[in-house]
Amino acid sequence: MLTVNSIPSPFGRLAEQDRSRRAAGLRRELRPRPAESALLDLAGNDYLGLARHPRVVRAGADACLRWGAGATGSRLVTGSTALHAELEAELADFTGFEAALVFASGYAANLAAVTALTDAGTLLVSDAGNHASLIDGCRLSRARTEVVRHADPEAVRKALAGHGGEAVVVSDAVFSVDGDAAPLPALAAACRAHGAALLLDDAHGLGVLGEGGRGSAHGAGLAGAPDVVCTATLSKALGAQGGVVLGPAAVIDHLVNAGRTFIFDTGLAPAAAGAALEALRLLRAEPERAGQARAVARGFHRRLTSRGLDATAPDACVVSVRAPSPQEAVDWAARCRAEGVAVGCFRPPSVPDGVSRLRLTARGDLTGREIGGAVDVIARTAPPGGGEVSDGPGQDPGRI
Amino acid sequence: MLTVNSIPSPFGRLAEQDRSRRAAGLRRELRPRPAESALLDLAGNDYLGLARHPRVVRAGADACLRWGAGATGSRLVTGSTALHAELEAELADFTGFEAALVFASGYAANLAAVTALTDAGTLLVSDAGNHASLIDGCRLSRARTEVVRHADPEAVRKALAGHGGEAVVVSDAVFSVDGDAAPLPALAAACRAHGAALLLDDAHGLGVLGEGGRGSAHGAGLAGAPDVVCTATLSKALGAQGGVVLGPAAVIDHLVNAGRTFIFDTGLAPAAAGAALEALRLLRAEPERAGQARAVARGFHRRLTSRGLDATAPDACVVSVRAPSPQEAVDWAARCRAEGVAVGCFRPPSVPDGVSRLRLTARGDLTGREIGGAVDVIARTAPPGGGEVSDGPGQDPGRI
Ligand SMILES: Cc1ncc(COP(=O)(O)O)c(C=O)c1O
Ligand SMILES: Cc1ncc(COP(=O)(O)O)c(C=O)c1O
Repeated sequence: MLTVNSIPSPFGRLAEQDRSRRAAGLRRELRPRPAESALLDLAGNDYLGLARHPRVVRAGADACLRWGAGATGSRLVTGSTALHAELEAELADFTGFEAALVFASGYAANLAAVTALTDAGTLLVSDAGNHASLIDGCRLSRARTEVVRHADPEAVRKALAGHGGEAVVVSDAVFSVDGDAAPLPALAAACRAHGAALLLDDAHGLGVLGEGGRGSAHGAGLAGAPDVVCTATLSKALGAQGGVVLGPAAVIDHLVNAGRTFIFDTGLAPAAAGAALEALRLLRAEPERAGQARAVARGFHRRLTSRGLDATAPDACVVSVRAPSPQEAVDWAARCRAEGVAVGCFRPPSVPDGVSRLRLTARGDLTGREIGGAVDVIARTAPPGGGEVSDGPGQDPGRI
Repeated sequence: MLTVNSIPSPFGRLAEQDRSRRAAGLRRELRPRPAESALLDLAGNDYLGLARHPRVVRAGADACLRWGAGATGSRLVTGSTALHAELEAELADFTGFEAALVFASGYAANLAAVTALTDAGTLLVSDAGNHASLIDGCRLSRARTEVVRHADPEAVRKALAGHGGEAVVVSDAVFSVDGDAAPLPALAAACRAHGAALLLDDAHGLGVLGEGGRGSAHGAGLAGAPDVVCTATLSKALGAQGGVVLGPAAVIDHLVNAGRTFIFDTGLAPAAAGAALEALRLLRAEPERAGQARAVARGFHRRLTSRGLDATAPDACVVSVRAPSPQEAVDWAARCRAEGVAVGCFRPPSVPDGVSRLRLTARGDLTGREIGGAVDVIARTAPPGGGEVSDGPGQDPGRI
């Protein structure tokens, strides 16, 4: 046998890719955080401040102690507990859908929904700004995918009109990078005009939009409709981990039988299921949490634009601020951090349009003082000039 | 706007599919389990009995209380904690690889490894018995995939010989349905003869195979080699949830920058990371656990075959027993359950060859009495006759 040292690496080309990433300011490094930090967190997706809520973490811990650290198998074998069933029932009831199915992640929920609801004859119409997990779902499915301009129901209508058979229109309900909401009424009308199904990813809407945080579909009067399926994650407003598909019972039943990331994945860990369930109950008991989070986001936007920054108007809890280049975005984020404010820094390929930006998230529990102080830091540390220049390839949904 | 009742369902064809599944005995239903059960569990993948070990659940609960119920963001934003870093360092050290990267699931780890280590010019050589997550990785990648006969290093050699450029050979190290190990020395030799990389999925080997459970790669002298990458899950022998990719530091660094299911997924929940870390430490302190679990599996096999059942010889902790038909497999499993023994029942599409079977898993903490009693139940309740007949389409890797 060869000794390890004499074996040539088959991964030589990775070094080359690393060099070009460095040169373009696009290299990423992990920066593990401590359990307690003095930084003001405007980077996470814990929109309601529930991930560390005493009742939520207590429920997660109790579920781990009572049900075990893992689900021990596929949901179809040993991985379905009564806790999972309870969570599914409450999620369906809260969001207004007939049935719900919980997955190990939102990513897995999206892969299952897109692939299991389509076949080779289906047309998938996908918004150009969709999340990577929906794009991967389109790539995995056997359907033909037509990528349409971002937030353009007319383009959806045109795509559907050119296709006779079954079709599924797939869109983020709230887009993850800029935080803008999809034009749901017009999208639903376009789908209905052509008998197409509408598949919405409400990762950033559940807990934040709709009455008391019941989600985008509920807010638009689409929850429970026979032609609407919604996915969401338990990892953002609900502060835990996991994903869910919401829809007609026949659709959920089909996913149990045909969703590859349902059948072939270990069930969600009990701690995450228990924590998400408690977060949901907290939100039901205190429905004002959703509106508070949205108000904080609007406050950020108002103050940032009044300081001359190019910030997106938030439909939910995400506000993004364009930067002149990837390197300047990284440096800007570092200056914010040095002054006590953690902000997200999104660069290609994590941005749909190739434009680097800071990404700020609102949390319902931020005070006016915290918001003001954070805006002051962001404005003071801003690089000179702004920019709409594309920094490199974005997610490139056109390649589906 | 239309009222909900007047909107036709675009999912009409699902009812048709449901009817044919029922007719073929292939319909699946969820059966949520209670927290405590009198059933003897031979269905889960908790090979070392650690999912409910007091120290493991305590560590999971403490991590939830200390770090929060969720990671709150992508590993690249807020989702990397010092706990994740600690877990990665210990996983790499234990398995003998240079570096490790933790994902929200083993499924996600496999998708990232297969897609990020290949490009349009790569040849992927994939074993016909590979797990769905590897198959989906092949489908998502831009590489050309050649599916080769199960456990056939000569077929791998042939596939590699017909291709001039970069190649990655991908295989389960222990196959999930029948529990047979891949022929690692011959596979590695085939790869090395052609400068190809070897990507192994050790979901069912970590904690069970190799010295003290260090995994299949370690056992075969392949850990830490510059041309070997290994994935594994934290949801089986380690009793929690999550996945990991193990390999050269340059490969791990590349995944941080290019792994879509790393970049675009929320980090693993702290409770799962904390529980997996404690399970790993327990295993290091009690390395005999791995051998005990394997011995239990061999005991099952010996006793089942001595009762005339068609059981696979286990290389790790999985023993499967063929059934004459999907319906008979379901009925057989139900009879076992009625007599106090929970066994897995795998039918198409969860079986690579279309043959339904019971799937039993060994746990290191089972007593001789429990093993004997379970074998007695399985043998007494067996349907008359055996069968090698294919019941329907398996995972159909040929369609990649
Ligand atoms: C729009 C969108 N969909 C899906 C996901 C995936 O959800 P999860 O991280 O829970 O897997 C995310 C974020 O991670 C997201 O932003
Ligand atoms: C061989 C194999 N690989 C990968 C996975 C996926 O791991 P996880 O369930 O942790 O996502 C599984 C089982 O679920 C498996 O059996």
